[in-house]
Amino acid sequence: MTTPRTGRAPLTLHPDRLFPADPTTRDITRKIYQQIVDLPIISPHGHVPVEWLADDIPFTDPTSLLLTPDHYTNRMLHGAGGVELSELGVPVGSEMTPEQSRNAFRKLCENWKYFRGTPVRYWFEQEFYDLFDVRVRPSADTADEIYDQIAAKLATPEYRPRALYQRFNIGAIATTDDPCSDLSGHAKLLADPTWDSKVAPTFRPDAYLEPGRSNWNELTNNLGEVTGVNVDTYAGNLEAMRTRRQYFKEHGAVSSDHSHADAGCERLSDREAEALYAKARQGTIEQADADRLRRHMINDQAKLATEDGLVMTLHPGVYRNHDTQAFERYGADVGGDVPYAIEFTKALQPILDSYGNVDGFQLVVFTMDETVYSRELAPMAGYYRCLFVGAPWWFIDEADAIMRYRRSVTGYAGFYKTSGFIDDTRAFCSIPARHDLARRIDSAFLGGLVAEHRLDMDEAVETAIDIVTTQPRKVFKL
Amino acid sequence: MTTPRTGRAPLTLHPDRLFPADPTTRDITRKIYQQIVDLPIISPHGHVPVEWLADDIPFTDPTSLLLTPDHYTNRMLHGAGGVELSELGVPVGSEMTPEQSRNAFRKLCENWKYFRGTPVRYWFEQEFYDLFDVRVRPSADTADEIYDQIAAKLATPEYRPRALYQRFNIGAIATTDDPCSDLSGHAKLLADPTWDSKVAPTFRPDAYLEPGRSNWNELTNNLGEVTGVNVDTYAGNLEAMRTRRQYFKEHGAVSSDHSHADAGCERLSDREAEALYAKARQGTIEQADADRLRRHMINDQAKLATEDGLVMTLHPGVYRNHDTQAFERYGADVGGDVPYAIEFTKALQPILDSYGNVDGFQLVVFTMDETVYSRELAPMAGYYRCLFVGAPWWFIDEADAIMRYRRSVTGYAGFYKTSGFIDDTRAFCSIPARHDLARRIDSAFLGGLVAEHRLDMDEAVETAIDIVTTQPRKVFKL
Amino acid sequence: MTTPRTGRAPLTLHPDRLFPADPTTRDITRKIYQQIVDLPIISPHGHVPVEWLADDIPFTDPTSLLLTPDHYTNRMLHGAGGVELSELGVPVGSEMTPEQSRNAFRKLCENWKYFRGTPVRYWFEQEFYDLFDVRVRPSADTADEIYDQIAAKLATPEYRPRALYQRFNIGAIATTDDPCSDLSGHAKLLADPTWDSKVAPTFRPDAYLEPGRSNWNELTNNLGEVTGVNVDTYAGNLEAMRTRRQYFKEHGAVSSDHSHADAGCERLSDREAEALYAKARQGTIEQADADRLRRHMINDQAKLATEDGLVMTLHPGVYRNHDTQAFERYGADVGGDVPYAIEFTKALQPILDSYGNVDGFQLVVFTMDETVYSRELAPMAGYYRCLFVGAPWWFIDEADAIMRYRRSVTGYAGFYKTSGFIDDTRAFCSIPARHDLARRIDSAFLGGLVAEHRLDMDEAVETAIDIVTTQPRKVFKL
Repeated sequence: MTTPRTGRAPLTLHPDRLFPADPTTRDITRKIYQQIVDLPIISPHGHVPVEWLADDIPFTDPTSLLLTPDHYTNRMLHGAGGVELSELGVPVGSEMTPEQSRNAFRKLCENWKYFRGTPVRYWFEQEFYDLFDVRVRPSADTADEIYDQIAAKLATPEYRPRALYQRFNIGAIATTDDPCSDLSGHAKLLADPTWDSKVAPTFRPDAYLEPGRSNWNELTNNLGEVTGVNVDTYAGNLEAMRTRRQYFKEHGAVSSDHSHADAGCERLSDREAEALYAKARQGTIEQADADRLRRHMINDQAKLATEDGLVMTLHPGVYRNHDTQAFERYGADVGGDVPYAIEFTKALQPILDSYGNVDGFQLVVFTMDETVYSRELAPMAGYYRCLFVGAPWWFIDEADAIMRYRRSVTGYAGFYKTSGFIDDTRAFCSIPARHDLARRIDSAFLGGLVAEHRLDMDEAVETAIDIVTTQPRKVFKL
Repeated sequence: MTTPRTGRAPLTLHPDRLFPADPTTRDITRKIYQQIVDLPIISPHGHVPVEWLADDIPFTDPTSLLLTPDHYTNRMLHGAGGVELSELGVPVGSEMTPEQSRNAFRKLCENWKYFRGTPVRYWFEQEFYDLFDVRVRPSADTADEIYDQIAAKLATPEYRPRALYQRFNIGAIATTDDPCSDLSGHAKLLADPTWDSKVAPTFRPDAYLEPGRSNWNELTNNLGEVTGVNVDTYAGNLEAMRTRRQYFKEHGAVSSDHSHADAGCERLSDREAEALYAKARQGTIEQADADRLRRHMINDQAKLATEDGLVMTLHPGVYRNHDTQAFERYGADVGGDVPYAIEFTKALQPILDSYGNVDGFQLVVFTMDETVYSRELAPMAGYYRCLFVGAPWWFIDEADAIMRYRRSVTGYAGFYKTSGFIDDTRAFCSIPARHDLARRIDSAFLGGLVAEHRLDMDEAVETAIDIVTTQPRKVFKL
Repeated sequence: MTTPRTGRAPLTLHPDRLFPADPTTRDITRKIYQQIVDLPIISPHGHVPVEWLADDIPFTDPTSLLLTPDHYTNRMLHGAGGVELSELGVPVGSEMTPEQSRNAFRKLCENWKYFRGTPVRYWFEQEFYDLFDVRVRPSADTADEIYDQIAAKLATPEYRPRALYQRFNIGAIATTDDPCSDLSGHAKLLADPTWDSKVAPTFRPDAYLEPGRSNWNELTNNLGEVTGVNVDTYAGNLEAMRTRRQYFKEHGAVSSDHSHADAGCERLSDREAEALYAKARQGTIEQADADRLRRHMINDQAKLATEDGLVMTLHPGVYRNHDTQAFERYGADVGGDVPYAIEFTKALQPILDSYGNVDGFQLVVFTMDETVYSRELAPMAGYYRCLFVGAPWWFIDEADAIMRYRRSVTGYAGFYKTSGFIDDTRAFCSIPARHDLARRIDSAFLGGLVAEHRLDMDEAVETAIDIVTTQPRKVFKL
C-alpha cells in the first residue's frame, strides 16, 4: 500500500497557522495569541520518564526519541503505510542498530503524505522546524539528510533532556507512576539544588483496582509488602492505598489517575466489599463481581481524595490491546487501543452526590467520546463545584476536535470549569507543539467570540491567559 | 474558587452580534434578520406563571424576578462561583430581606466572568441593556448601581407583567400546568375583555403517568375526584385523562407535554394494562412493570391526541435531581438535572407506526442528546407526516448548538419539519433575548446557505419569516 | 399541510456553489476543484439496474426515471408535502398513466420549498440545469413546462442509458445483486464489444445470512439448487457461498456488501454453528440464536474474503420498514428506513483481530451514526491495515455531513484510510451531481487546510486527485 513520495520541497512554518481564514477573526486571534504564546507550559498529565530529567541522559538517536515511544505516529505508519511495528523499534527498549534506526526514520519520511491533515504531521513540522532547524519537507529523498541533521543536534549538550526542558519553557510537568514505585527519580529531583521546576508524580493505581485481572493478586501482595500493611482484608487494602497516596503526596504528587472500562463508582456495603475482596484474593471472583468491586474501590479513591486532597482524574472507555497478536508480540501502548461510547451521567452520580460539595475534592473527567461534552459533562460541570471537563485527550487532541470541544462545552460550563490542556504524551519533543496547537485553537475560538460580538476583547485576552496559567494550577492544585 | 472581578467597563450591545464574521455572509445575514427582527414572539412552550399575567402583580425586586427562578443562572453561580443556592433565594418563595436580595444580585455581578461564552451572559446583556438601560458591565464594583437601576424600573407601571408582555411583542405564549389544575388564571384571562393575547395552558401529566412513584396513588385519587370518574380501573383512568384533556382544550390548550426517562411507548394488551394498573393501585407494582405501564399510558396519550387534536410534545432523557442533597434542601428545578443518551428510532416506532399517518396527529420531539438529530429525528421527521424535530432545548438552546441543530437536521428534514423556537423558560424577562438569539442564528444559517449559493435570497427570506410565523403556528396549532 | 408555491423565478447554478464564503478560502478551493472537476466518476457502490445499460432501454417519462425509484425524494414529499407514495408511482413498476406521471412530477414542483437546504434539491437543480437545460425554478406554475422539457429530451437518443453513462463520464460503476442472480446483464455487457466500461456486480447476501427470517429456508434451498451444493449442513452452506462468490468474481465483482442490525461478527465453535444451523433449517431457531449464527456467518464472509479477495463492505444499523403499513402497501425501500446508534469497537474486534493483518483483506465500514467517526472508525482505520472509513452514506451524504466527516476522520486516519465517495443511488441521473457535491466539499475541506496553513497547496491538489482516482481504485480493487 506504500506509495513512497520522493522529491524535495521546502518545509515552512507559517506564523498564522491554525488561525481562522477570515481576516477580521484572524487579526483578533493573532492579538490574543500574542498574549499567551510565551507563557510557561503547564503539563499536569503526561508520560515523560522522570529518569530523563533526574539523570539528564543524552538521547541516542532520532528514532528512539521521536518514533519508537510515540504510538500516535507508529499506528499510522502501520495502518496506512503498512510498516511493521518492529521496524520502528517497538517495543520501547528493543535493540536497534544505527542502520535500523535510520531505516525506521526513513519510513516516516517516505509515508509523510499519509499524515496530511493529522496532528502528528503538525507536531512533527513544528519540532523539525523549530527545534531541529529542518528546512526540507520529509520524503524518501530527504530522509537521510533530516536524520543526520537531527542526530547531530542530539549529540550536543543543548539537546540533553534538562536543556530541552528549559528551552521548552515548561513550568510544571507530571509523570505517571505505579503506586508501588519508590519515586526515586522524583526524590532525586526534589533533592537536587540545581533543579527548581515542579515534576509531580501521579498516582496511577489502575491495575490494583481490577480484581479480575490475572496479575491482581501479585500486585496486591506487592502493595502489602511495600506498605507493610496487611492486605488480607478490604479494609487493609484501603489502608495500604491511603498510605501510598500519602507517600506520593510527600513526593510532590497532586493527582491520582484512573482509566477503566466504565466510569462506574457505585458503593457496596462494607460487608459485601469484604466478601468480594476475599473471593478476589482467593482468585475465585467472577468478572461481573470484579467490576462491582472495582467500582467500589474507585468510590473509595474519591473518598481518600476528600481526605488527602489529591485531584482525581478519570480517563475511561478505551478497549486496550484490541489487536491481540500485536499485544502478544509488542506489549501494550503500541497503537492498538480503541475508544468506545461511554456514559457519565448515571455512572458518576454516586461520587458527585456524595463528595460533589466537599471542599477541596476535585474531579477532572477526560473522554474520547465527544458526544458527552454537551450532553453530560458540561451540564454536570456547570453545576457541581468539584467537577471540571477535561481537555480533549489522545485521539481527539487535534485542531478540529479542540474547536469542537470549546463549542460543545462553553455554552453550559463556560471556560472556568474546563481543565486546561494536557499533552498526555510519551513524545517529549512534541510537548511545545502540542501546547502551542491548543493555544492557537483556544485563541481562534475566543477570537471568533470577539468577532461575533459575543465577548469583549479585554475579556477574551484575560480568559486566554487564565486558561494557560491560573486555571490549570487551580484545577490540578499546582 | 471565586475570583471577584472588579472594575468598571462599558456594557454594549452590538447590532451585528452573533452574525458570522465573513463580511459577505454577515451582510446577507443582516438583511435576512431585518425581515424578522420585529415579528411577534410565538412561545408555544414555557413556564411563566399565568398568575403574573392574570393578576398583573408588580415584581418586587431584581433577584426574585431575574435570578431565583432561573436555574440556568443559579447552577453556574453554584458550580463555578461556589455560591450556595440558598443565597440566591432558592427555593422560589423563600423569604428574602432587601439586603439578601441585593447580596444575591451582587453574586451574579462578582462572578460575571464565569458566564463568558454562555447564553446566560448573552441573555442578561440584552435584558440589562435593552430593558433596564444598563450601560456598565456587571462587576463587584457596579453591582449595587445596576441593582438600584433595575429596582427603580420595576417600581414603575411600565415594568408590570402585562406591560412587559406587550413590550416584548409576544403574540402567543403557553404555560405548563398540572392536569388537575382548575386553570382559573387562564379562565380569568379568557374572560378579561382588556386582554386579547393567546395564553394557552399545557397539559403536563408526567407524574400521573409514573405508577412507580410514591405519590402516584395520591395524584390518581385526586384525578378521580376532580373528574368525578371512577379511576379504579385503567379504563377509568383513561376516561379521566380524556376528560381533563378536554377541559384543558376548552381553556385554550393546544398541546400536552411529556418528560420521562425514555421515549418508549409500547402498548400492552388491555388485559395486561388492567392487571398492572391494579397492582399499581395496590402499591405493589415493580419498577420495571411501572415503566411498561407508563409506556402504555404514553401510547394512550397519543391515541387521545388523535381524538382531541392536542399536539403531543416529548422531552425525555433527563436525570432529575442528580444532587440528592440539594433536592432535599431546595426541591426540584434548581439546576441539578442532567441529560443522558436517548434512543428514539426503536422507542417511538409504536406510535409512529400506529398514528403517524392519522390526520391531525402531531408529535414534536425535543432532546438534549444532539447525536439523534441527524441519526434518528431528522430521518423520521422527513418521512412521517406527524413528526416535527423540536428546537434545541434547555442546555443546548445557545448559539453554537442551534447552529449545529440546523446543520444536522436540515439536510434530511429541511426547515418545514422543525418546530420553531421554544424558550421553555422560567425567566420572563429573558424571553425576548432568547427568541432574538434564535432568530439571529437562523438568519446566520440561512445567510450561509445564500453565501454558498445553496439557496436564493428570496427563498431564504421567506424561510426565515415562515420559521417564526406560520411554522410554529402550524406545528402547535396556534 | 401542503402550501403550493406558485410563481416563476429563474433557476441558476452558480459555479462557486458549496464553496466557503471567505474569499481567500474560496479562491484556494476553486483552484483545487478545477483539478478534479473533469475526472471520471468511480462509483463502487450503487443500485442502478444493470439491465438499463445492458439493454439500453429508453426511459419512458420523467417521473419513473427521476421520482419513483428515489426514496430520498419520495420520503420528503410524503412527510413534508403530505403526498401519498402511490401518487408517485411507488412501488417501482406500478402502472402510471401519462396523466399520473405528470401529476406526480407536479407534486415535486409544488412542494419545492420543502426541499430547501436538502441535498435532494441540490441534486435536482444540477440535473435540471445541466442535463435537461431547465432554466426556471420548479413551482406549481412551472411544473408542466419543466415536465414537457424533460420528457422531450428523454425521447431522444442522447438520453438513452448508455449515452447518459458516457455523458456522465463514469469510469466504473457497481450494481448490487442477489447471490443467486445469474448476472446475465453483466455477462451481456462483458461480452459486448461495443461496451468497454467496468460495471461490477456486488455480492449482497444479507437475506441468506439471516436465519431468523421467514423466507430464509426458501432462499437457502435456492442457494443449494443454484450451486448444486448440499446445504443441509453449515459446512455445505459455506461451500455454496464460496462457490457463488467465485461466480460473482468471474463476472467482475470486486466486493461483497452487508447490512445487518449490528456489526457483530463473533465466531461460534464449528459444533455450535452446525447445531444452530440445523435448528434454523428446521425452522425452530430462536431470534437470539439466529443473530449469533448470523454473526458467525459474517465472520465467515470475512474469512472467504481472505481467500477470494473480494472487498468486504458493511452498512449496518438501519431499522428497515419502520412504517409497517407503508411496507405492506408498497414494499421495501420507499423511505421508511431509519438509522439508529451503532457500535463498532467491540463488534468488529473478532474479524479485525483475526484477519486485520492478512494481506489482501480489505474492509470498508459505512455508517449513518456520525458519532463513531472520531470515536471508533478513525482510530481503528488509522491502525488496522485492512480497514477504511466509508464515506458518509445515505441520509448523511450531503454537504454539511460530508464536511463533518472529513473534520472527524482526518485527524486520526488522514485521507488515505477513507473510501472515497460512493453514491449508493437508485436515481441514475443524480450520479454526476452527487459526485460533484462530494468533490466540492472535499475541495472546500482541503482549501480550508491550505488557508489555515495546515497543508501546502501542492499537497492539497495531489490529495484531491488521489481521493477521486487512486484511492477508490485501491480501496475497491477496481
